[in-house]
Amino acid sequence: MATVKNWPPTGAVVNLGSSVFARSMRDQGASVYEVLWEPPARGKLELIEILDVLAGREDIEEANRLALERYSSAQPVLVGIGRARDVIPGFGGKMLLHAGPPITWDRMSGPLKGAIVGAIVYEGWAASPEDAEGIAVEGDVEFSPCHEHSAVGPMAGVVSPSMPVFIIENRTAGNRSYCTLNEGLGKVLRYGAYSSEVLDRLRWMADVLAPVLAKGIELSGGIDLKSIIAQALHMGDEVHNRNRAATSLFIRTVAPYLLDTGFPLANIRRVLEFMNGNDHFFLNLSMPAAKAMLEAAHGVPKSTMVTVMSRNGTDFGIKVSGLGAEWFVGPAEKVKGLYFPGFRDEDANPDIGDSSITETAGLGGFAMAAAIPIVQFVGGTPDDALGFSRKMYRITMTENRFFSIPVLGFRGTPTGIDLRKVVETGILPQINTGVAHKDPGIGQVGAGLVTPPWECFEKALLAFAGRYA
Amino acid sequence: MATVKNWPPTGAVVNLGSSVFARSMRDQGASVYEVLWEPPARGKLELIEILDVLAGREDIEEANRLALERYSSAQPVLVGIGRARDVIPGFGGKMLLHAGPPITWDRMSGPLKGAIVGAIVYEGWAASPEDAEGIAVEGDVEFSPCHEHSAVGPMAGVVSPSMPVFIIENRTAGNRSYCTLNEGLGKVLRYGAYSSEVLDRLRWMADVLAPVLAKGIELSGGIDLKSIIAQALHMGDEVHNRNRAATSLFIRTVAPYLLDTGFPLANIRRVLEFMNGNDHFFLNLSMPAAKAMLEAAHGVPKSTMVTVMSRNGTDFGIKVSGLGAEWFVGPAEKVKGLYFPGFRDEDANPDIGDSSITETAGLGGFAMAAAIPIVQFVGGTPDDALGFSRKMYRITMTENRFFSIPVLGFRGTPTGIDLRKVVETGILPQINTGVAHKDPGIGQVGAGLVTPPWECFEKALLAFAGRYA
Repeated sequence: MATVKNWPPTGAVVNLGSSVFARSMRDQGASVYEVLWEPPARGKLELIEILDVLAGREDIEEANRLALERYSSAQPVLVGIGRARDVIPGFGGKMLLHAGPPITWDRMSGPLKGAIVGAIVYEGWAASPEDAEGIAVEGDVEFSPCHEHSAVGPMAGVVSPSMPVFIIENRTAGNRSYCTLNEGLGKVLRYGAYSSEVLDRLRWMADVLAPVLAKGIELSGGIDLKSIIAQALHMGDEVHNRNRAATSLFIRTVAPYLLDTGFPLANIRRVLEFMNGNDHFFLNLSMPAAKAMLEAAHGVPKSTMVTVMSRNGTDFGIKVSGLGAEWFVGPAEKVKGLYFPGFRDEDANPDIGDSSITETAGLGGFAMAAAIPIVQFVGGTPDDALGFSRKMYRITMTENRFFSIPVLGFRGTPTGIDLRKVVETGILPQINTGVAHKDPGIGQVGAGLVTPPWECFEKALLAFAGRYA
Repeated sequence: MATVKNWPPTGAVVNLGSSVFARSMRDQGASVYEVLWEPPARGKLELIEILDVLAGREDIEEANRLALERYSSAQPVLVGIGRARDVIPGFGGKMLLHAGPPITWDRMSGPLKGAIVGAIVYEGWAASPEDAEGIAVEGDVEFSPCHEHSAVGPMAGVVSPSMPVFIIENRTAGNRSYCTLNEGLGKVLRYGAYSSEVLDRLRWMADVLAPVLAKGIELSGGIDLKSIIAQALHMGDEVHNRNRAATSLFIRTVAPYLLDTGFPLANIRRVLEFMNGNDHFFLNLSMPAAKAMLEAAHGVPKSTMVTVMSRNGTDFGIKVSGLGAEWFVGPAEKVKGLYFPGFRDEDANPDIGDSSITETAGLGGFAMAAAIPIVQFVGGTPDDALGFSRKMYRITMTENRFFSIPVLGFRGTPTGIDLRKVVETGILPQINTGVAHKDPGIGQVGAGLVTPPWECFEKALLAFAGRYA
């Protein structure tokens, strides 16, 4: 092949960074070559100085290796289903859990308020949605983030004390995580719907679905979620917005055990039908699996690994392994995506849900190259999907040992978001997500792509510097 | 970007085709640029003349459009399971069906002989493998290709009269196709094994598996195989050597109906376990689905569409839509692939089985870009998998309307092999396949890649010219 030498041609202009100058030169008739470039840390000197101080620190590298090893060696296994108030630590009384960082009633978005109202009626604390809202306004119910109880919830993420929840155990470290069972599509509590149809389904889930599944899981001796996720990544899922393969693998794994449960055949049949009718059923297993792996990596002093990314529909919050319980918060952004027929941009609530725990674990948007068909659901092209995964290697610490992407030559998914790399590159984690209607009681209106707000990472880096620099 | 002009540089040599001249010029110090090129029809003048005559023929184009339309509009639905002798046309008495083109006992390869022996014992026509071989040698059993009875069988493909077979109906044209149920991996009849373990499993399949599944399928009202295949192509399957997704989708679809069959719970449970234990279970559904679609396209006068590609372990045979019942045969080739531990090249039987009906239908090797993880099973790299699919567009007539490849921008799979294009380009259809041990009674030793022998296509083109030129 011929090689191009002497580039750029003599007399041409090379422009670094902003296109403004290039345009102006071009207007004057010059040949301009543009090199894409952004200044580190978005050009903020204070942050650049911190990054310089933190760059060579072997103690931080060592802490990150430990955090990553705890993540990588985690073995999330579905071990059972229990009633939320009986199994979730620190949960009980008139408490409701919700997605994202802490928030008060007055600042909650429509879908979260809707789910709270639904849960209050479901628990029998109020007889009507109006009464439920009154109770919420008056502060008679305590709100607490799922993430502060080793739990996660998709979208509104509301967990009430009598709801059944999956119990996932990390068999390496022994820590457990929790998540409700997925209700399916359409009008569902997690999107803020609370009609009698929604509450009736929740009661059926507690009365029929949960006992049958719980017994089947018990008889199975535990179901290895890490193996299912690894296989599903080779089957077109990224286990955030595409869970068709993982749901299928879960059904075929658990089905034989369901037949041994001794429950009426009609109930077992209905359980199989319910799971078969919902390709997102596994989402509520991929999320707590990711949580169990990441919680094992949390709390390593000096580690810059991001262990939580989560949204409540108003705020986006992150946590960092070396920074303990503190949330670093910024405004939740609007999702760019595809809307279901009849809905549009103005109907959309800002970003909401704990499901970005999948991205935090190197799945979801980080693994989109494994799930190219997802672009038909969240928008974009196959090249975009490949590009998102490739880009995420620039802000992560390693390539996953277990989760790999066939089309990238079986490269491990980009794993372990390094707070320093996000700030240095200005590249924000890529999340794909469902979109809730901004008003309570309506439900999902679409799906798309979103990133956290920059300030979460800026605040976290400043806090990290304050503690460790 | 800079553009390369004036290529090749003045004074350089451009070499077209064989590298011999290029090497010799390079040895003499010249700059040589090589252009890959092969003469049409492998340089055979007689074939080139035929291709010239056939090239502009609107009647052939019209025939191919009709054949393709019959293929494309076919709707293969699994409608039931029946006993082979009761449902397969022209089948009964002491007859055994086998994979590939017609063959006599003396020319059969080891695995086909093994499967024949097993089937004779299974039918009770002989008490021992030794007696069975005697019966086969003496010609007391009639052998007939599956393909001459609208049936297909993986590997040896042996069907005996009392075996249960899937019944697939093309709901558009009404034609039906048939295939045995997949036995699983290890020692199985289709790889020529015939121990008591093999025959006991076949009996269990006839006595327990088939009745339960048959009733479940009946209660379902029919299971749409085309939809499952289309989904599976977005889930890492090409439905020849990767059927994990399709098997999973089939299980979750049929499972609820199995619970309504009224059979003992223990039997239903065992059926679910059996299917869950075998990721190739769907192969015996993708094959007859492909057969039902292609048989609809067969028998269109003047059509050059290839409608059968099949191997009996000794010969490879093809059929062409416009050439009726005639087989065009050449020697089956050795498969290049990956061997299971303990086996190597010398152990391998030549290419065997009707499963290349999937490639003939635009699936299997033609859809490998949809199933990149398959390279871990059959060898090669992700780029090879993409390359095989891309190359097959050069010998096919259209891009599939229903089966698409996400990573190629959801391009339809290369579909409808045109006999003329194969001969013109010299590009042979790409097949991926399992490899049987050459001796009877052993089983699978690996998996890999193979093509048909060139002469099948050369003979078919000559016959086509004889009839239509």
